[in-house]
Amino acid sequence: MISKMVLRYFNSGDFTKWQQSYRRNFFNSVGGFKSLNLIGTRSARGAANLGLFFSVTHLGSTPPLVGVVFRSQNVPRHTLENIYDTGYFTINSVQKNYIEEAHQASAKYPESMSEFHEVGLRESYHANFLAPYVESSRVKMGLKFVEKHDILANGTTLVVGEVVECWIDGDALNPDGFVDHTEIGNVAVNGLDTYYSATEIKKMPYARTKDDVKKSS
Amino acid sequence: MISKMVLRYFNSGDFTKWQQSYRRNFFNSVGGFKSLNLIGTRSARGAANLGLFFSVTHLGSTPPLVGVVFRSQNVPRHTLENIYDTGYFTINSVQKNYIEEAHQASAKYPESMSEFHEVGLRESYHANFLAPYVESSRVKMGLKFVEKHDILANGTTLVVGEVVECWIDGDALNPDGFVDHTEIGNVAVNGLDTYYSATEIKKMPYARTKDDVKKSS
Repeated sequence: MISKMVLRYFNSGDFTKWQQSYRRNFFNSVGGFKSLNLIGTRSARGAANLGLFFSVTHLGSTPPLVGVVFRSQNVPRHTLENIYDTGYFTINSVQKNYIEEAHQASAKYPESMSEFHEVGLRESYHANFLAPYVESSRVKMGLKFVEKHDILANGTTLVVGEVVECWIDGDALNPDGFVDHTEIGNVAVNGLDTYYSATEIKKMPYARTKDDVKKSS
Repeated sequence: MISKMVLRYFNSGDFTKWQQSYRRNFFNSVGGFKSLNLIGTRSARGAANLGLFFSVTHLGSTPPLVGVVFRSQNVPRHTLENIYDTGYFTINSVQKNYIEEAHQASAKYPESMSEFHEVGLRESYHANFLAPYVESSRVKMGLKFVEKHDILANGTTLVVGEVVECWIDGDALNPDGFVDHTEIGNVAVNGLDTYYSATEIKKMPYARTKDDVKKSS
């Protein structure tokens, strides 16, 4: 039995009539699944800070660049201020077994409190790298601040960082360089609060046009 | 039995020594799961174009803003040129049953060929909206170009678009506005080629600090 698809239509006029919470839920989920990461920083005075982010985006491999969007309302600005002040941050994956602690890091703690301590995740440091890592994360990156872009339309900010070091669980690292997040129980998110495990459906070969295939055969 | 976590360490010195394909696989997957979307555009001359994107990012709900990263090497620049030329584009979700067609849209077709036709996905149009939608997608957005930011560090570009209309499968739209992509078989991606289905683990309540909970009780 094939169920007939019924699509509902909405436009800008509808969006503005929606209640704020409805609109927030809708536009935070409409684009699809997102990565879930904890970002660790230290303030200029040395206080450790941890925030939950859904907007880590790949920007390039050579050099390795990552983008993170900072929203003025949904995330603690402490993270952004600390990146500006110190120039360094860490990006840490979240496994299924500490989703609740990670989610709690999205609460608005005052600057004087360490989210690590409040949510119950241990911080760890490496050599001379200034920003704290999440000890239990199995995929972590240390980044230095490269540039920022203020989005004029709504005051959000894209921060670009270069990955300068990485810690990867050996079980997750495939021989071709691919980091398999399913292997170690890392999760995805959608909306502001819904967490997912992922199951591999298919790995596809590099896509070629018919003409390219002809040329190379 | 608890397996002891063994983390492997890499830094900038290692990254530059890696083969290009290893480095590309690694940095395209290290950040975690990503949304998968097809972007539809039309050229100034009216030719339909379709491209596969992993970088659709939520930027805000009021107004509804979305960011998309355009990389010079991995994605057809036709999409970006068409957005600059015409000011409009569509973002369309990908369901499990047409992953292969979607993946094929990442092949480098010449401008004269329509990816819709080449990969076997039907285009559809709505009223006076200029850009083509993917007919079979069950979550689709029509956007107008708002602003762009060139990333100085590697020449990629962040395009910001405002969502001006949406088509959503009624089965996916929850009463609180949340769009449930699992309900309609939409998929996630990681790396350049590995596709995933997602299973909900947990929906969490809004995170509050202990002080906030005390105040409101």
